[in-house]
Amino acid sequence: MSTILNGLRVVEVSAFIAAPLGGMTLAQLGAEVIRIDPMGGNIDYRRWPLAPSGASLYWASLNKGKRSVAIALDKPEGQELAGALIAQAGEDAGILLTNLPASGWMSHEALSQRRDDLITLRLTGNHDGSGAVDYTVNCASGFPLATGVGPEPVNHVLPAWDIAAGLYLATGLLAAERARRLDGKGRQVSLALSDVMLASVGNLGYIADVQVNGAVRPPLGNDLYGALGRDFATADGRHVMIVAISNRQWRAIGRATGLTEKLAMIGPLMDVDLDTEGGRFTARAAIFAVLERWCAARSLAEIEAAFDGSGVLWGPYRDFGQLVREDERCSVANPMFGTIDQPGAGPVLAPGSPLAFSGGARRPPLPAPLLGQDTEAVLADKLGLSTAAIGKLFQAGIVAGPQSVAF
Amino acid sequence: MSTILNGLRVVEVSAFIAAPLGGMTLAQLGAEVIRIDPMGGNIDYRRWPLAPSGASLYWASLNKGKRSVAIALDKPEGQELAGALIAQAGEDAGILLTNLPASGWMSHEALSQRRDDLITLRLTGNHDGSGAVDYTVNCASGFPLATGVGPEPVNHVLPAWDIAAGLYLATGLLAAERARRLDGKGRQVSLALSDVMLASVGNLGYIADVQVNGAVRPPLGNDLYGALGRDFATADGRHVMIVAISNRQWRAIGRATGLTEKLAMIGPLMDVDLDTEGGRFTARAAIFAVLERWCAARSLAEIEAAFDGSGVLWGPYRDFGQLVREDERCSVANPMFGTIDQPGAGPVLAPGSPLAFSGGARRPPLPAPLLGQDTEAVLADKLGLSTAAIGKLFQAGIVAGPQSVAF
Repeated sequence: MSTILNGLRVVEVSAFIAAPLGGMTLAQLGAEVIRIDPMGGNIDYRRWPLAPSGASLYWASLNKGKRSVAIALDKPEGQELAGALIAQAGEDAGILLTNLPASGWMSHEALSQRRDDLITLRLTGNHDGSGAVDYTVNCASGFPLATGVGPEPVNHVLPAWDIAAGLYLATGLLAAERARRLDGKGRQVSLALSDVMLASVGNLGYIADVQVNGAVRPPLGNDLYGALGRDFATADGRHVMIVAISNRQWRAIGRATGLTEKLAMIGPLMDVDLDTEGGRFTARAAIFAVLERWCAARSLAEIEAAFDGSGVLWGPYRDFGQLVREDERCSVANPMFGTIDQPGAGPVLAPGSPLAFSGGARRPPLPAPLLGQDTEAVLADKLGLSTAAIGKLFQAGIVAGPQSVAF
Repeated sequence: MSTILNGLRVVEVSAFIAAPLGGMTLAQLGAEVIRIDPMGGNIDYRRWPLAPSGASLYWASLNKGKRSVAIALDKPEGQELAGALIAQAGEDAGILLTNLPASGWMSHEALSQRRDDLITLRLTGNHDGSGAVDYTVNCASGFPLATGVGPEPVNHVLPAWDIAAGLYLATGLLAAERARRLDGKGRQVSLALSDVMLASVGNLGYIADVQVNGAVRPPLGNDLYGALGRDFATADGRHVMIVAISNRQWRAIGRATGLTEKLAMIGPLMDVDLDTEGGRFTARAAIFAVLERWCAARSLAEIEAAFDGSGVLWGPYRDFGQLVREDERCSVANPMFGTIDQPGAGPVLAPGSPLAFSGGARRPPLPAPLLGQDTEAVLADKLGLSTAAIGKLFQAGIVAGPQSVAF
């Protein structure tokens, strides 16, 4: 089947979210990604949530479509095997993606002895190599103190920095592989999780706002900043988000709710031009008061009927259960999704890549491997080891085959 | 100067965050990114926050290091020019990145008439082409109803889906360019903002948790799920985040606080094994009670002194102002940052790419262009137009040169 990154080969030695997501992003586009784990699994192998079988739904969800090899990475023979796999032959191979420290056999320098055009992608916590995780990066980002309504910090639940870091790793890997194709040179590519946060804060204008205006964005609850938008409660205990960024979206709200005349009164009332984003933001309390009453008198279904096809930019709030049960986009009706049979979990709805490329079939989602599922095949295919040699490695406890998911 | 994507050429017709961030990500790695805007700027050109000059710090921050061309995209002559720029000659060119609708002259089909190996990356709201923005995608994601402490939704302030979408676009663009280099074929690459959200929810295990366990993650305030971590108030009105994922990090907390013996009492007290992530999560209320008292009796400086070099995984909370003033990582001491002279804003601290590649200098951050700053040079260089021909286009109002940033 045609997939965009067919042929590309990546070896991953990783844990948690960012680096595994970087590898999975490439696997979902057709690359062969071999995740090497220590015997028994890495530190993320049993992270919650778990299925009743004990299998980690967290691990399974972040490692779909990869091959898995289990190697005793604490033994010299295991390190030798892993190094050989990382530096395996082929112009599309020789790429390591890792969030492990760059020491000993895993350093770019040591591995480059095996293959001088090696590409190593390494995620660290901070740019000086010190440790940090999404939570300890996020607390310094300014966002928790700009979230919610009060002076207390509110952490977002989405591991947003890990996700962004995983996607930066995918971008950096393809950039380095492009350069290698042109100049034949290997490279070490470094990314610090806290730099992902700091770059994002800067790219969104928050650093400049502090430096130029001396302004520190206060928490605004669920209000948009600089434009019109907020959540509203419905008559049946649900919530909807209503937004107007363009003038067209603003006028659509008036038309769909029948409130055009009332809303127009707010311009002179608040001395603002409601045909500007800034004017609507300044007058938002008055606008919200009118919309709040309108929403509170209607069920979600009634609001949906009024807004459907109206040009209003809105959406219902959903918890994770409502998302899975209610939202048609979160089902196989969406071509990104498929049903996979995940060992230890059973049939589950799973996303493939959100990127779709014309001229080739979209790669359907694949289950995550069992730990060590591909050990034997990978040693034979990639390193050309004989069945006898592989058997000795198993007997010596240097590698392991597929583990049961039940613990 | 050597930068990893030198030679790559991308034309961007975009607005807001995701598509501009995708283009900027590539520009920061050395690609030439030409952003084409309609005369007077696109809908994002005056978005808040603004500098006192009226220049948008939002726009400036998301378009650093690009070239800017202003063209009357509503006129046939302007569309012809833009089409020619998009399809410009060169094996590293012929790439369009856009979040505008795929209609008329901007469709992949129409543009492919000019260059059959054209790559078009197109961001839409939903996979069916209907509209959505970060706010209306996020409300359905489940996260606002899992954030904070109560049943009311709490929106995160970070436009996380836009950021992830921008990075998926950069990944997708490089993947398509790699494939074109191998097979000579152009492609349309589609990405829906809501698919970025849905894929992330699935990749983090939330969909499987609903389907396999019938579980819907409730809001836990600032507590980590499945591991130990939370915010704590200090004696001097600040907050710190303290986390333990590994056993090593857990033991470090006891050592650094001198609370090892007290914390050990919680195992038998709560009938859990404190040497497991799940055990610490289950017993977190008791653990937090002990740590809360310890933190409340100490200033941030005292806590920092106790934790520095101890192996404790922690960080202080900072608002945007504290981040810029206090955090050394957010300064030119961090090699990712530089000071740029941004027109209309003055000298500001700005991030380059968080990705660093060995074997070449890191591209220092560059300011965003003035709108239309490069119109004349781009028409001459890329389309070979004569000074006289360019003069006629200016006179006819088909293109515009650099605009003052003062409004």
